[in-house]
Amino acid sequence: MPPSIENTPSSDCPVQTFRARDLTITRSTNLKPFSDPRTMIGSSTDHMLKVSWSSSTGWGAPEIVPYAPIPLDPAATVLHYANECFEGMKAYRNKNTGKIQVFRPDLNAKRLNMSADRIALPSFDNDEFITLLRAYVVVEERWLAWSGNAAFTEADESDFLYLRPMMIGTTPRLGLAKPNDAMLLIIACKFPSWHSRPLRLLASSPAETVRAWPGGFGFAKVGANYGPTLQYQNHAASLGYDQVLWLFDADKRYVTEAGGANFFVVWRTDDGDVELVTAPLEAKTVLDGVTRRSVIELVRERMPDIRVTERQFSVDEIAAAVDSQKIIEAFACGTAFFIAPVGEIGITGRDVKIPLKVEGKSGVYARTIKRWLEEIFYGEIDHAWGVTVN
Amino acid sequence: MPPSIENTPSSDCPVQTFRARDLTITRSTNLKPFSDPRTMIGSSTDHMLKVSWSSSTGWGAPEIVPYAPIPLDPAATVLHYANECFEGMKAYRNKNTGKIQVFRPDLNAKRLNMSADRIALPSFDNDEFITLLRAYVVVEERWLAWSGNAAFTEADESDFLYLRPMMIGTTPRLGLAKPNDAMLLIIACKFPSWHSRPLRLLASSPAETVRAWPGGFGFAKVGANYGPTLQYQNHAASLGYDQVLWLFDADKRYVTEAGGANFFVVWRTDDGDVELVTAPLEAKTVLDGVTRRSVIELVRERMPDIRVTERQFSVDEIAAAVDSQKIIEAFACGTAFFIAPVGEIGITGRDVKIPLKVEGKSGVYARTIKRWLEEIFYGEIDHAWGVTVN
Repeated sequence: MPPSIENTPSSDCPVQTFRARDLTITRSTNLKPFSDPRTMIGSSTDHMLKVSWSSSTGWGAPEIVPYAPIPLDPAATVLHYANECFEGMKAYRNKNTGKIQVFRPDLNAKRLNMSADRIALPSFDNDEFITLLRAYVVVEERWLAWSGNAAFTEADESDFLYLRPMMIGTTPRLGLAKPNDAMLLIIACKFPSWHSRPLRLLASSPAETVRAWPGGFGFAKVGANYGPTLQYQNHAASLGYDQVLWLFDADKRYVTEAGGANFFVVWRTDDGDVELVTAPLEAKTVLDGVTRRSVIELVRERMPDIRVTERQFSVDEIAAAVDSQKIIEAFACGTAFFIAPVGEIGITGRDVKIPLKVEGKSGVYARTIKRWLEEIFYGEIDHAWGVTVN
Repeated sequence: MPPSIENTPSSDCPVQTFRARDLTITRSTNLKPFSDPRTMIGSSTDHMLKVSWSSSTGWGAPEIVPYAPIPLDPAATVLHYANECFEGMKAYRNKNTGKIQVFRPDLNAKRLNMSADRIALPSFDNDEFITLLRAYVVVEERWLAWSGNAAFTEADESDFLYLRPMMIGTTPRLGLAKPNDAMLLIIACKFPSWHSRPLRLLASSPAETVRAWPGGFGFAKVGANYGPTLQYQNHAASLGYDQVLWLFDADKRYVTEAGGANFFVVWRTDDGDVELVTAPLEAKTVLDGVTRRSVIELVRERMPDIRVTERQFSVDEIAAAVDSQKIIEAFACGTAFFIAPVGEIGITGRDVKIPLKVEGKSGVYARTIKRWLEEIFYGEIDHAWGVTVN
């Protein structure tokens, strides 16, 4: 019988994707204690998933192993040329079944592949990735609070585990070239929920500092979009703001992202409609956020009277809408921030107040959308976006 | 006697710079063999210098240790948010004295500090850095060819050692924030000389792809400027070009950098002058290259009849100068490329030929400037820019 092509990679034919069926699991014999859950916030979990790639042989076999430092040659590409991309995801326990779910993992898999391509790292099969991710979450199941672990549940009302798939170039060679070696990892950690205090944003000065540019890489989840924002983020923090509202174009002052999250405004238009507006994807300067996309889709489906618009809009339109009392609310959204109501935006020296009708903490739309998503995250309703892992 | 403030960091006062006098050296007992010098190309040397920093205690004691992988937590900042910056330098052996020199290390020290600030990494004292760099080069002295090592000299006509100072953020925490931990390293490797074949450049399509933008970080030597260029660089290579000539602005099509190097054109102006022109630093989209700056300073000093201009100029001006026979030559310059004559530029589908008067390999100005710099690099003349390390 001739060997199947899929099973016999030859040296002429590097393996095009890792395969979940090759996964091996080595469990840690030294699990972190849960005695004081507060110390677990920010801490990585007990295991990591890793798969190596080389240009000559392709992808190797995935393995889940005890969480540990990775030895990297000081000349490794990722340390010099930022050949790195990542994803942010969360796992939740279904309130009805007790099983664990992730949210729309197909979108993260696809985006990780896209980001990898943008930063000259290898591609892989999305379904194999999702199967591995599920296996990893099952291994880390104890990190998700449940009724049997009172101490942990108490300190962890958020009840989720943050997942961080990532890929890095590891070739130990200083010449600037596409890496010949790479590693995909999945790690996880406990994050706090975003506090309920509404965000204070500082609108950036686009003549001085710009997060992303058309023809750049602001649409990809690559490290190169994040480190360079910290200088201005620190400036904003020193003035008491939580995050930067990144503007683009010194004249047009278009709103793009808020910190590392997408940004939405709800306001009344001149013809009396209620409009939910966010920056468009066409210019490729904002991330195609999974939460962003889900907000748009849910509002279109469930609030047909709301006009949902993806278009360029300026921060000065926001200030004008506040002055004319047409503003309804604003919020940032993303996996880490979830739906974070915005209470104030510093716009060229003036702190513009955004309404927070629900107990001074949120707008009505943000609160409603947040609940819709939570119902899916925690399996309170059956929905195709909630994918059970175990 | 009261202790000197400088010598007694307290916990309230993190150490503001590493100090060369704290350096310890542990020599490798397993030096790489020089039996086949060709295998050494691209290879790292035997040692690395490293210094750790934390926000609470500041800089630690520098150490030179055997070259080895660094264990990095998978959550380390540098692997996610590209908190990384570096320098490229070369060490040469003085042809008269046999001693080793580096070229204008003060400029690299200053730029590394600037890049570190731009990417939210800590600062240090420039002079302490230079003293450490010198100590490191002395330890790696055997990697510089000399008459006593015939085998190595033969394969290494370039006769230099490439030095790579670098800094990375190492805090193992996924929240996007200024790193609380960092590491400065100096490593070195043998690089080949740039081959004598003139460069073929592909002018980028600035509507599609952009290397750097105003308000971004194109002026800083941070990893985030390099990885994202590889996708288009690979496209250029697939069409047979060596490097990308990066343009900015879809209408104005300004020339910025060539690959990772600065770019110069020499042409005759309408009023008959000979002009050496390169992109200006004001827009902060090109690197303040040490070779770039040295070229400008040497030509201003030694060729007073040449008009040296730092200004925005377009790739279409180059094509027009070729058509009107006003073009004289073009070259890229940087530490890695040194002075690399450009023979051809692909401009919107047309391969524009640039004259190469010297044996079809170089222009006269490039050849002259190259010799001037080599005289300084190799100590053929005494010059303040050549700094002896031993």
